[in-house]
Amino acid sequence: MDLKSRQRSPYRSRLERLRYAFSELRADALLVAHLPNILYLTGFTGSAALLLAGRERSTLLTDSRYTLQAREEVSGARVHIAKHGLFQAAADELRKLRRGPLRLAYSPAQTTVAQKQAIDTHAGGKLRWVAADNLVERLRAVKDEDELLRMTEAAQLISRVFEETLPLLQPGVLETQIAAEIEYRMRKRGASGASFETIIASGPRSAWPHARPSPNPLMKNELVVLDQGAILRAYCSDMTRTVFLGRCPDQLKQMYAAVLKAQQAAKAAIRPGVEAGRVDKAARDVLKRHALSRYFTHSTGHGLGLEVHEIPRLGRGDSTRLETGMVVTVEPGVYVQGLGGIRIEDDVVVTPHGARDLTTASRELLEL
Amino acid sequence: MDLKSRQRSPYRSRLERLRYAFSELRADALLVAHLPNILYLTGFTGSAALLLAGRERSTLLTDSRYTLQAREEVSGARVHIAKHGLFQAAADELRKLRRGPLRLAYSPAQTTVAQKQAIDTHAGGKLRWVAADNLVERLRAVKDEDELLRMTEAAQLISRVFEETLPLLQPGVLETQIAAEIEYRMRKRGASGASFETIIASGPRSAWPHARPSPNPLMKNELVVLDQGAILRAYCSDMTRTVFLGRCPDQLKQMYAAVLKAQQAAKAAIRPGVEAGRVDKAARDVLKRHALSRYFTHSTGHGLGLEVHEIPRLGRGDSTRLETGMVVTVEPGVYVQGLGGIRIEDDVVVTPHGARDLTTASRELLEL
Repeated sequence: MDLKSRQRSPYRSRLERLRYAFSELRADALLVAHLPNILYLTGFTGSAALLLAGRERSTLLTDSRYTLQAREEVSGARVHIAKHGLFQAAADELRKLRRGPLRLAYSPAQTTVAQKQAIDTHAGGKLRWVAADNLVERLRAVKDEDELLRMTEAAQLISRVFEETLPLLQPGVLETQIAAEIEYRMRKRGASGASFETIIASGPRSAWPHARPSPNPLMKNELVVLDQGAILRAYCSDMTRTVFLGRCPDQLKQMYAAVLKAQQAAKAAIRPGVEAGRVDKAARDVLKRHALSRYFTHSTGHGLGLEVHEIPRLGRGDSTRLETGMVVTVEPGVYVQGLGGIRIEDDVVVTPHGARDLTTASRELLEL
Repeated sequence: MDLKSRQRSPYRSRLERLRYAFSELRADALLVAHLPNILYLTGFTGSAALLLAGRERSTLLTDSRYTLQAREEVSGARVHIAKHGLFQAAADELRKLRRGPLRLAYSPAQTTVAQKQAIDTHAGGKLRWVAADNLVERLRAVKDEDELLRMTEAAQLISRVFEETLPLLQPGVLETQIAAEIEYRMRKRGASGASFETIIASGPRSAWPHARPSPNPLMKNELVVLDQGAILRAYCSDMTRTVFLGRCPDQLKQMYAAVLKAQQAAKAAIRPGVEAGRVDKAARDVLKRHALSRYFTHSTGHGLGLEVHEIPRLGRGDSTRLETGMVVTVEPGVYVQGLGGIRIEDDVVVTPHGARDLTTASRELLEL
């Protein structure tokens, strides 16, 4: 992880903005339990930690496996190695922050009932919990210049990997083999791994939007949905293309053209100030005109960054307003049982002039 | 996923045993939110679901992305496609289960504060929550014959992959490249993926027990810790070996020998009825005799199965009694800042006669 060396440490300013957000809620501190949020705020990449962001100072709590790593990685926060569990250590820190009753902001969606109880027990009843979801996620949704650079590179990487993989898409090759080749090529190009389990879904299974690769061979005259993403310098890409093995029948060609039009309409709807739900509606309206909207069983897209699913969600009725610097996927799809599925997905960044594509592989229907 | 076709559906009997467990707590139903538990109980491999196990019947709740997949995969439970979110659907199901107040068992460690609140809100105050951690995990800890077969194969797979990778361990090769080669070979041999992010830690970074691969090259006269695992037919393996590039200095040879002795002592301590903490102590005692115990900064091992970390934990003071059919890792290690780290890890199954190794790669110190 080279977050620290590459950036003029963005961590302090992120923690500053966060302090402002939880102070507005009249909270004395914020408990951060979600690891990608901790990475975003401190640079720590370990798999066990809590962050207590206070008004004066912040403390990262981790365990003895990470003593050396935390010392090297963490910026902007003190490191405390917990001897008797993270929750007892968190309660101890909270006692140090303030003698009287303390208002602790936390995310109910990212805190388990057991974690909350453990801190309550150790803190001895002095805590007032203040529910506050998405405080860090809202900062994360708008990417800075360095983040956009990383995401552009992650998107270019996956576009190239897809293009390299096309010659391998032959009848007889197993779905799992294709997935293996794609993930291998990601890593050869510097990715630390896949941002999710690569989806290769051929034939009838292409109608499962989230199918895992099976040990089934690709077959002639079938659709193949390839949904793949790489993590490069901590940031994710996520791209889907659908190809046909052989000469594509007209019915499927029309379906493909409709999905592509829906995607173009969604991209065209993107600009700062627009509600996320409007982008979803733009895609859905196109599919409705082609009598395909009932086969479009998921949202049009989602935010992307350190995680593969972030806010905003480009879904029905979502009222989040898009902002310059947000990165989202645009991925309408139709899934018809017995016939197959088609999805086309790009990563785009919101600019003052509209959506700009980060993923670049051709969106034309490829007949292989 | 071929769980369904390969087994004479174990799901009904697992749900039966679970019913017995929550009925003993005088609960009317159990809410299962943890996806590996849902896979274990129903065969469902999707990424969004809740399971409500009742006394008479069980219901799997998922969303419209998984309609076709759930219909094909799920065994032993009804499938309900939630239209307005999983939590509202769960509350609706609970109302159907029982008119009066209902006692709902749940796992506080696997349920977020927000999830609990959402079900409470939709259920309209009729729920009595009964905290019950590890009900499903306790079933999962003891593997059946089919599971042991899968785990043996997953362990053999990773052993072979490690052996194949040895010739690539040369000065100048990047840690990330080694990780890429290992994960590629896993998938070529049929794995659906890595069971965790492969750890390749060379030189000073070998002293980080959980280091991610860096774009640093391997160097002559350095230790390399390789910690890798594959998922094969849904089950995990997890194996670590430590090698030296060049002729190993005596000090490190002695450290290596001590870690290996500690591992052998831990394995020798394993048998049905023994407390998990005793196994940890066996390893720790050996390292103490070599004045190395303060560099052994983690537990001796952990359960392994559908997840890479399961119960029991082979850690200080853990009083879980080992049972025939449990699969655990045995992985003592020492980490000395500036000098490097050494860890040796195998997967073993508890048999009436003691521990039997599932991972098979040589444990001798390799000087490459």
